[in-house]
Amino acid sequence: MTFRGGVNEKVTVDLALTPIGIIESCFKDRFAVPRQSLLVPSAWSRIKLYPHVQPELALQGLDGYSHLWVIFTFHLNTNERYHAKVHPPRLGGGTIGVFATRSPHRPNNIGLSLVEIKSVGRDEVEIWGADLVDGTPVYDIKPYLPSVESIPNAKEGWSGQAKDDLLNVEFASADLEGTIAKWATRIDRPVKEAIIQTLQRDPRPKVYKDAKSGQYRERHAFRLFDGDVHFYVNEGTATVTEILFAQKPTP
Amino acid sequence: MTFRGGVNEKVTVDLALTPIGIIESCFKDRFAVPRQSLLVPSAWSRIKLYPHVQPELALQGLDGYSHLWVIFTFHLNTNERYHAKVHPPRLGGGTIGVFATRSPHRPNNIGLSLVEIKSVGRDEVEIWGADLVDGTPVYDIKPYLPSVESIPNAKEGWSGQAKDDLLNVEFASADLEGTIAKWATRIDRPVKEAIIQTLQRDPRPKVYKDAKSGQYRERHAFRLFDGDVHFYVNEGTATVTEILFAQKPTP
Repeated sequence: MTFRGGVNEKVTVDLALTPIGIIESCFKDRFAVPRQSLLVPSAWSRIKLYPHVQPELALQGLDGYSHLWVIFTFHLNTNERYHAKVHPPRLGGGTIGVFATRSPHRPNNIGLSLVEIKSVGRDEVEIWGADLVDGTPVYDIKPYLPSVESIPNAKEGWSGQAKDDLLNVEFASADLEGTIAKWATRIDRPVKEAIIQTLQRDPRPKVYKDAKSGQYRERHAFRLFDGDVHFYVNEGTATVTEILFAQKPTP
Repeated sequence: MTFRGGVNEKVTVDLALTPIGIIESCFKDRFAVPRQSLLVPSAWSRIKLYPHVQPELALQGLDGYSHLWVIFTFHLNTNERYHAKVHPPRLGGGTIGVFATRSPHRPNNIGLSLVEIKSVGRDEVEIWGADLVDGTPVYDIKPYLPSVESIPNAKEGWSGQAKDDLLNVEFASADLEGTIAKWATRIDRPVKEAIIQTLQRDPRPKVYKDAKSGQYRERHAFRLFDGDVHFYVNEGTATVTEILFAQKPTP
C-alpha cells in the first residue's frame, strides 16, 4: 500500500503478525458478506486454529464466554492506495474520515469483528454472525467482556443515524423451499435463515440499488456453502429464484 | 517469539503493520497501568497520529462517537516464549487458556482496548480510561458501535466471576492533598481521581498482595505524568505518603 502525502516522521516500530488460524465460512466469495458482524446472526463460520498455538490448551476456558473478538486481515482487498477519506455505502454518496468508519480500506489492513460462540472444540471454535469470507487469516481471538465492553449509551455518529430499510425476502416457489430444507438437513446448518438475513440487508452494490429498473442486469447470485443463491430485487422485495449446487446434493 | 510444540502446518499469510500513531499516557512505566481499559476512567492519554495517515482528513467524523477501539502492541513485553496457558493475576494462582483471557502474553503481541473519547483534534485524539503505557505504538483506531457491540447479557466466564475487592485510598496529610490540587491545576488533568482509581485496584504484583506483613518492602511508587506517587497498603487501605516530582513544579 502506498500513502499519499508526505511522511515527515520516521515510523519505526513495525509489527509482524503470523496467523493463529484461518476462517472457514459459509460465505465463499466477497459478494454478500455482511458489512458488519452480527447483522446476519445465522451466518455460520469456524475458526480453525493452527497447531503452533497449541489450541487444545490455548482454548481452555473460552467455553465460559458467549461472544468473541476476532482480529483478522481483509485478505481479498486489492486496493493499493491509501485514502484518508472513504465512501461507506450507507453514507449515501458522501465521504468521511476512515477512522470514523469500520471500512475495510484502512492504513493497516486489519479487521475487528464481534461474533457469537457456537461451540469450542479441541482445535477450533464454531461461531455465528461473522462478516468474514472463507479463507480469512486470523491473528488473534479474545473473549468479549460485557462488564467493560457493553456500553449501551455510547454515542454512535453517522453510522448510528444511517437508516437500514430491510428488504422483504420471498422464495419463488414451494419447491425451492423444499430444496432449501433438504440442503439445511444435508449440511446441518440454518441456510434458510442465513439467506433471509443476508438478502434483507440488500447485498447488491450501491450502483445496482440506485439504478433505474432495467438499467443493469436484474439477477444476482451469491455463494453460500456449496450453493449459488440466485435472486432479484424489485420494489423492496428480494425474491430467491433458484439454488444451484456445485455438486448435485444427494437426494 | 519461539513456540513450543511442533508446527505441523506451514503458516504463510504474515501481515506487517506500520504504526499509525503513538500513545502519550499518564502512565509512564508499566507498573500501575490498569489491567483493563475503563477501570481507571480518569486516566488521561492522547493518541498522536503520524502524518502519513493524513489525520486531518482521516479523523473527520470521529467526534460523533463517544468510544473508540485502539489496536496496539504490548511493546514492553519481554517474554520470548509462547505459553498456551497463562496465569491471570485475578485467577488466584490457576492457569487458563490464553484465548480465554485478555492477557498481554499472546501468540501475536497485539492488544485491543476500548476507551472513551475526550476530544478529537487535528492530528490527535485525547482519550480517557486507557490501559496503555506511554510510548505504545498504535496500529488502528475504530469507532465503537453500540448498536452492534453492546451486548449486556453476554456470558462472561472466569473473568466475570473473579472478585475485585477495591482498596480504600487515603492521603497521609492535608498538605499532600494541597500538593495534588496544585499539580492538577498545573497540568490541567484530574490527577487525584486517577490516583484513587489506580490504587483502588491495588496495582502491586501478586507476590506483594499475598505476602505477610513485613516480608517485602512496604512502600511502592508509580509514575503518573511527571510525579512519583508513593504509597503503602495495609489492611485494605492504600495510603499515599508522598509525591516526588521529576522537576520541581513551579509554586
